[in-house]
Amino acid sequence: MTAGGAKRATAFAPASVGNVGVGFDILGFSLDALGDTVTASVSDAQGVSITSIGGVVADLPLDAARNTAGRAVQALLERAAPGFGVALQIDKGIPLGSGLGGSAASAVGAVVAANALLPSPFDKIDLLKFAMQGEAVASGALHVDNVAPSLFGGLVLTVGVDNPRVKQIPAPSGVRAVVVHPHLFLATREARSVLSRSVDMSDFVWQTANLAGFISACYTNDLDMLRECFEDVIIERQRQSLIPGFAEVRAAAMNGGALGCSISGAGPSIFAWVEEQRAPLVVAAMQAQFAARGLESEGWAVEIESAGARLIES
Amino acid sequence: MTAGGAKRATAFAPASVGNVGVGFDILGFSLDALGDTVTASVSDAQGVSITSIGGVVADLPLDAARNTAGRAVQALLERAAPGFGVALQIDKGIPLGSGLGGSAASAVGAVVAANALLPSPFDKIDLLKFAMQGEAVASGALHVDNVAPSLFGGLVLTVGVDNPRVKQIPAPSGVRAVVVHPHLFLATREARSVLSRSVDMSDFVWQTANLAGFISACYTNDLDMLRECFEDVIIERQRQSLIPGFAEVRAAAMNGGALGCSISGAGPSIFAWVEEQRAPLVVAAMQAQFAARGLESEGWAVEIESAGARLIES
Repeated sequence: MTAGGAKRATAFAPASVGNVGVGFDILGFSLDALGDTVTASVSDAQGVSITSIGGVVADLPLDAARNTAGRAVQALLERAAPGFGVALQIDKGIPLGSGLGGSAASAVGAVVAANALLPSPFDKIDLLKFAMQGEAVASGALHVDNVAPSLFGGLVLTVGVDNPRVKQIPAPSGVRAVVVHPHLFLATREARSVLSRSVDMSDFVWQTANLAGFISACYTNDLDMLRECFEDVIIERQRQSLIPGFAEVRAAAMNGGALGCSISGAGPSIFAWVEEQRAPLVVAAMQAQFAARGLESEGWAVEIESAGARLIES
Repeated sequence: MTAGGAKRATAFAPASVGNVGVGFDILGFSLDALGDTVTASVSDAQGVSITSIGGVVADLPLDAARNTAGRAVQALLERAAPGFGVALQIDKGIPLGSGLGGSAASAVGAVVAANALLPSPFDKIDLLKFAMQGEAVASGALHVDNVAPSLFGGLVLTVGVDNPRVKQIPAPSGVRAVVVHPHLFLATREARSVLSRSVDMSDFVWQTANLAGFISACYTNDLDMLRECFEDVIIERQRQSLIPGFAEVRAAAMNGGALGCSISGAGPSIFAWVEEQRAPLVVAAMQAQFAARGLESEGWAVEIESAGARLIES
C-alpha cells in the first residue's frame, strides 16, 4: 500500500484456492505463482472505464458494471467520491473457469491499484468488501473465500458476508501446496448447481469435526491431525464427477504421500497439501493422471504463506 | 495416573459441558466444580460388580452391563484380562438429566480408578474408548463430547468416533465459564429426538464459519472474534423450546456482557463464556431469570482450563 494520491498504479493480485477441503465457502489460500495485474489511472471522465484486457483471457466485458474489476472499482468510487474517474488496464494471468479465483484476483488487483490513487486510501477490510462486489458479477453471489486470500495472502478464513471478518491462519511449516490445473473450463455457476441444498446431520457432524481439527492442526503444526481431518465429506463427492479423472488424480496425490487432496474452488483445478520433499513427485503424479486422459495441465508446488495482493508500480 | 497394581483406587471425574455452541457433538469443556467419584477395588469374583451407588442420584442400575460405569469397566477388562474382577462404588455428584455430562463422568471415573488396579495401565486414549462404551449405555449411541473433556480436562475437541483423536484447545485467557443448572430433568434421548436429520446448506456454511472462527479465536485469544462466532445457528434453535425461559436466560447473559451463551449438552443447563470480572453478575442474572419462572437453580463461574479426571486415592 502507499500513502495514496498516485496518478497511476499497478497491482498484482495472486490466484487462490477456495473451498479448501473442509472449508467450503469460508477458507482459501493464495497461489502466488500466477495472478492478474491491473493498472489504474486517474481519468477525467467520471466513473470507471476499462481501456484494455489482455493476457490469457481477452474475451471479458469492457462494460465496467459487468466486469469484476470494473464493478469492484465502482463500489470503491461510490464510497470514496474522489472527484475523478478511473481507467483500468487488466492483464489476466489466471485462466477463466479454472477454479483458481481469476475473477476474484481481477477485482482485488483493481481495488488495490485504484486505492493508491485516492488521497485517503481505504484499509484492507474495506477493499475486501469492494472486491466482493466485483466478484459477485462473475459468480452471481457474494463469496469471499477467493477474494480474501488473494487480498491478504496465505491461508485465510473469512467469517460473515455482510460484515466479513478475516483471520489469517498459520500454514503448517514444511508443507507445500500443490495445484494442478487441467485445460478444461468449468463454470462456477454449473459447479454450484449440482450441490444439494441440505446436508445430512451425520455428515454435518463429521465435516465440522474435520474442520475444527484442520484449523486446530494448522495452529499446532500437527501433521497427523491434518491428515486425519483433511477430507471433505460433503461438497467433493457432489462435484467430483464434473472433473474427468478426479478420483485417479486424488489417488495419485494420496499415494504420493499427500496430507490431503481436494477440488480447488469449484474446479477443475485440484490441490493437495504435501510435505515439502514429496511435493515435486506429487505434482508429477497428478499431472500424469490427467495426461493419461489426454488432458494437458499445468502444475505448481508453492509455499502456502505468501504476501497477497500488492502494488508493483505507482 | 499411577504405575498401576493398586488393590483399591478412587478417582474423581468432573462434570462437563458438551455441544459447546458451534461444536455440536465434537466440542466440550470440563466443569471441575462438580463431578462423580468412583472407587474401584480388586474382587475375587470375575467381571464387574457394583456394590453401591450414592450421592445426588441413587436410582441407577446395579447391573454392570446397564450401568455406564459398569459397562465402561467391562470394556476395560475385556481388553486387559487381568485375572481378577472389579467392584465399583459410585458416588454421584452430578444430577441426572442436567446436561452436565453425569453419565460420562461416571464412566470416566470408573475407568480411571479401575486402570490403577492393572499391572500395566492403559493410556488415556484407550480409557476414552472404554468410557465411550459406558456412556453409550445412557445416551444410546457413542458420543464423546462429554467423555473427552471429563477425562482430559479443559476445552477438548474430539475428531472421529471409532478411532477418536483428541485435541486440547487453549481456552482464552481471562475468560470464565458460567454454568447454570435449573432443577429440571431433560432426557438426552428426548433432546436428540427433536433434532432435524438434515441441515440447510446456508446454515451449514454459517455454522462452519462460526466454528472455524471460534477455534481460531481460542488459539489467538481473540475475544472479538469469539463473540462474533459463538452463535450456534443449527442446534440451539431446535432445542431451546425444551428449556423454559431459555431465551430470557440467554438474553440476561448477553446483556451482562457474555461473549456467548448456549445450551449445555442436551440441556437444561445453560452455559456462557464471559470475561472474568463480569462472571459473578452474569451468573446472578441468569439465575434470576430462572427464579422468575419459579425454577430453583445452581450456578458456577469457573476457569475453563482444568485438570480432568484424576486419582484422589490409591
